[in-house]
This record gives sequence, C-alpha cells and structure tokens, in this order.
Amino acid sequence: MTKMMRLKKDVKEKRELVNIVIDRFLPRKDEYPKVIHKAIRHTLFAGGKRVRPYLTITTYQLFGHMDKKILPLAAALELLHTYTLIHDDLPDLDDDTKRRGKKASHIEFGEDIALLSGDALLLEAFKMMLMVDTEPNFKAELIKEFAEVSGSEGLIGGQVADIKCENKDVTPQEVEYIHLNKTAKMITTSVRYGAMLANARKDDIERVTEYGKCIGLMFQIVDDILDIEGDPHKLGKKTGTDIRSGKATYPKIYGMKKSKEKVNELKTKAKEIIGYYGPKAEYLQKICEYITTRRF
Amino acid sequence: MTKMMRLKKDVKEKRELVNIVIDRFLPRKDEYPKVIHKAIRHTLFAGGKRVRPYLTITTYQLFGHMDKKILPLAAALELLHTYTLIHDDLPDLDDDTKRRGKKASHIEFGEDIALLSGDALLLEAFKMMLMVDTEPNFKAELIKEFAEVSGSEGLIGGQVADIKCENKDVTPQEVEYIHLNKTAKMITTSVRYGAMLANARKDDIERVTEYGKCIGLMFQIVDDILDIEGDPHKLGKKTGTDIRSGKATYPKIYGMKKSKEKVNELKTKAKEIIGYYGPKAEYLQKICEYITTRRF
Repeated sequence: MTKMMRLKKDVKEKRELVNIVIDRFLPRKDEYPKVIHKAIRHTLFAGGKRVRPYLTITTYQLFGHMDKKILPLAAALELLHTYTLIHDDLPDLDDDTKRRGKKASHIEFGEDIALLSGDALLLEAFKMMLMVDTEPNFKAELIKEFAEVSGSEGLIGGQVADIKCENKDVTPQEVEYIHLNKTAKMITTSVRYGAMLANARKDDIERVTEYGKCIGLMFQIVDDILDIEGDPHKLGKKTGTDIRSGKATYPKIYGMKKSKEKVNELKTKAKEIIGYYGPKAEYLQKICEYITTRRF
Repeated sequence: MTKMMRLKKDVKEKRELVNIVIDRFLPRKDEYPKVIHKAIRHTLFAGGKRVRPYLTITTYQLFGHMDKKILPLAAALELLHTYTLIHDDLPDLDDDTKRRGKKASHIEFGEDIALLSGDALLLEAFKMMLMVDTEPNFKAELIKEFAEVSGSEGLIGGQVADIKCENKDVTPQEVEYIHLNKTAKMITTSVRYGAMLANARKDDIERVTEYGKCIGLMFQIVDDILDIEGDPHKLGKKTGTDIRSGKATYPKIYGMKKSKEKVNELKTKAKEIIGYYGPKAEYLQKICEYITTRRF
C-alpha cells in the first residue's frame, strides 16, 4: 500500500468511527417533533469528509494515545462545522441549493426548519463537548476555546468580514482575516484538541498549533481555487459562487498562479513542522497532499 | 410603597444590574467586524424586561444569598432568550419587523447579519455560562440543562411543533407540548438556576420547579392573549400575527374565556406553591400579578 492509500484507509476508518459516535449521540430521527431530528441528520449524514475530527483523532494518536476518549471531542467539531454549513446555505447568506451532493437543508425542509436545525446542531455540539471524559476544569477550557473560535471574534467574525468585503477592493490584511477566522481557527483547534486531550507538552501544543494554522489557511485557499477550477459533481456543491457574489478570495487578490504557490508554500511549511515527529506523523504529513489535491 | 411598587423597583434594579453585566461581558460595539457587534447589542439593549434573569436572581435571594455570583448565570439566560428572538423575527420564521419597540435585527442590519448575530449571541450565552463562579462539575451540570432546555427536545422542539401545527386542527396535547417547550421550560430553568446556585435542598428545588412550570405556562398563555387583545405600542411588536399565521394558541383551542380562567388558575397555583416560603417570597408571588397584568 502506498502512503496515500494508507491515509485514505485511515480517513475512512476514522470517519466511520465518528459517524457511529454522532449517530448514537443524536436524538433518533423518529423522535418528536420528527422533522427537526430528520433535518439535523440530513446534512450531517449527506456525506462529508470529517476532516476536522480526523485531525483531532490523528493528533491525539500522534502523542501516543489510542483510546476512544477523543471521539466525542472530535465529533463535536463536526456538529459545529455542519451547523455552519446549514446556516451558510440559507438564502439569508449564500443561498446554495446543494450541499455534500444532496439538497441543501432549506431546500429539503424549508427555511424555517433549516434555520432551527442549524441552531439545534450548535446546541448538540455543546452537549457533545460536555460528554468529553476529562477533568471538569480542563473540559471548561476546551469548551471555552470551542465558543471562542466559532463566535463573533472567530468563525462568525470571518463570515461577517467576508460578507462586508463582497464587491469591494479589499486589502491582503482583510483576506487574511477572513481566511484565518472563517476556516483556519477551527482547523487549528481541531489539531490542538488532539494534543490537549493527549496531555501533550506546551511546546508540542505550540508546534501543532502552527501546523494547524498552515493547513487551515491552505484549506481555505484550496476552497477558493476549487470554486473556480473544481468539478461541481465531485465537490457536491455549485462552483463559481464566489466570483458571482464578488467574494474576497485569494485568487481574486493574488491571481491563480500566486494562490497555488501560496498553497505549496503552506504545504511545505506544514509538512516541515509536523515532520519534527518523524514517521509517527506520516498521516498528518500526507493529509497535506490529500487536502491540496482534493479534486483539482 | 405598595407591594407592586416595591416589585417594580426591584425589577428595575435587577434589570440594571443584569444590563451592566451583559454590557461589560460582550465584545465592544466598535470591535472588528463592527457590524456584528453592533447587531448583537441592538436587540439586547432595545429594551426587554429581563424576566428570566429576574427570576433567577430573586430565587437565589429567596434562599438567603445576596451576592453577585448569580449575575452571569442570570445574564446568560437573557443572551439565550435574545438569540431566539432575533432568529424568530427572521423572514425564515415569523418575519416580524419590530421587536422591543425597535426595528427587528434583520430590518436594521439585513438578514445575513441578523442570522449570524443570533448565532453569535448563542455562543456568547455559553461563554457567559462558563464564567459562573462555581465548582466545575456543577457548572457542567448547569450548562447541560442550558443546552437541553434550548435544544430540539426543548425550546427548538416547541418552535418546530408550533410551525408544524399552523393552520391545523391541533389537540390539547400538542398545544401543551408547544407551550411547555417553547416557553415554560426556559422559565422553569430560570428559577431552578437560582435555587441550584444557592445550594438549595432537593425538595426546595422541586418546589421552585413546579412554581416555574406554572408561571412559564401562564407567561405563554398571556402572550397568546396579548396577541389578540394587547396594544402593539405597549408590546413593542405587532399583534394579530398568531391568528394570521394560524398558530396553535390557547385562545384558539379553548377560547378567550377559558384561556383567562387558565391563567388565573395557574396564577393561584404558582402563588400557593411559592407561598410556602412566606413573606420572603413576596416578589416571586407578586411577579405573578406582574406577568398576568402586563398590558391587558
């Protein structure tokens, strides 16, 4: 098996584990009122690579832990991520009709239920965080980071800046702010969580934080590139939406060539940082290829 | 001073305390990206009686505590409540244009920012919960209740049932479910929190829980009545919206006369339950009058 094949097998295995944890945790889809519980599961199980949980679990394992204690923490990140997708797709925001290859939530269930199912998922994410089996003070610290990276000074801040920069001449600083907050912070937290729950040393946590920032930024730039060059069938969502809505993307500011160079630069840096751990970090190195070559 | 005057003074004093705590806690309104931080404050400080925090603080005091430890817990309930108002007013749900006498968030800031400011407020509510100065295991218990009463098996469940019962023949059980989940659970938690943080005995917590259910149901029935008989100027929002959208309200199922009888019955029961504590519970008795006579 090549390294990439091994990685893909590992991604698949961990995805299945995370899906089981989420499935068992959420209210059954026939629970009253049924439609909200169906809606919560619709976008969650429409597909999804589970990149964030993968990073959390794999970083946890990097520091020598193989147990399942990490799973609720990893799964909570996916619940949080999926709530943002449901709200993003609403006509209030991006007005997208497809997500993960299926109908967007508001197309399937209506805008009212989609909005509420996003809210409900966010609450489920916090409930899942409370399930993490660790010392209560430490759990509070994890939950605090969870709320901070997703709030108005994190992910939501990034989304707002994104909206406000539409059809405007934006500065590199603004694009940086958007990418960092909208995507990179949550990816960074995903790897940080793995190290933190593994009780990693402070310098190790700092190292994976740097690695997380690199792949987080890389992830968003790749997303921007895919919106121009990607195949909508493979992506499971429409492309060209950034251009149509005049979004402040990397290719818009720097051009396609420079954007791809930036991806490569970040990839090299990320691999170098995590390369510190040698062969143990094989998956976290290889995931850089996986992210950058996904569908373009 | 009459009892009602004393109550009103107490309501005002506690409202001001809560407002100060919220104001100090939230990101400043000029923090980048400014519009989201303005939007978060817009609906929060448009007015609002702060009934939930009032109940929390007053129940805490009933059990002999006069310190400020209760304030973040009380304030978190108001943040949570206000997020539901912002999302409720969106065209995806009730499409209301006024709230607390001011423009609804989406009218002032657009639907995109209103949606995101609701999300951000929900996250601020959790951050505020984390600020409660108490033993970490106990704090986790409080946060769990917070997520449960507001999720798809609580408040959101009530909202969804409400939507799904529009323009239908509904059963008394369905109206009961809607009222209990949409409103009464959160009111109940408001009084429970006061008792819990005061370290009240189990039977005391059970007693205030029963009291909370009564005033919670009463609160929603009064809301239903006000939608028919209330003065939109005094309410700070449109009336008649329930009828137009065919909502499953108490007056719709039972008629106005029986609805008012039910309010009186619940009021008597609530006062009786809390009357157990004698003169100490004056405010919690009098608040029943306050809720039922507010503007009709």
